[in-house]
Amino acid sequence: MDKFGLYGKFTAKPENRDMLAAILMEAASSMEAVEGCELYTINLSDTELDSVYVYEVWTDKDAHEASLSLEAVQSLILQAKPLITGMERISTFKQVWGKGLPGQPV
Amino acid sequence: MDKFGLYGKFTAKPENRDMLAAILMEAASSMEAVEGCELYTINLSDTELDSVYVYEVWTDKDAHEASLSLEAVQSLILQAKPLITGMERISTFKQVWGKGLPGQPV
Repeated sequence: MDKFGLYGKFTAKPENRDMLAAILMEAASSMEAVEGCELYTINLSDTELDSVYVYEVWTDKDAHEASLSLEAVQSLILQAKPLITGMERISTFKQVWGKGLPGQPV
Repeated sequence: MDKFGLYGKFTAKPENRDMLAAILMEAASSMEAVEGCELYTINLSDTELDSVYVYEVWTDKDAHEASLSLEAVQSLILQAKPLITGMERISTFKQVWGKGLPGQPV
């Protein structure tokens, strides 16, 4: 079955961007215990000082859906909400392969 | 030192998209031997049938620059060129952390 991927953008006031990134890093940490989550990276743009990009790879779409109701995720969403001025799901992927994905010969 | 990341989009005629993805998968395979390359994933969009997205994470910017002159990379670029109708570097990241990055506690 093909992996499922997501690429999204969060925006905040520039003075809150690093605080938002720190919360998203906590989300990435909490994903360590979530089996279906293979990659969850927090990316700070070179040029956009108000933006944080999140790249996610999941074993499948269901694994991603299930994660949204986890208590740890819900509490981080509540923490982050006041800082977020915008959210944009830039791309979703039905298939993801490549170097660095666990357990997957390229 | 912070990792360096890239997110780019390649477009091809819809009938050539999978062929282009296959060449980019070869590039991902060749990155297995490239130490500075930590992640190189090929992503097929759910909605854009002419597009392939590549997400890359490098130990630093220099490692990425150096990879562009590798023989394997040069020959894959030559193979892919006739299929590519457009290229867009969507984001570059000065810092990348998260779950799934080798050797990096979140």
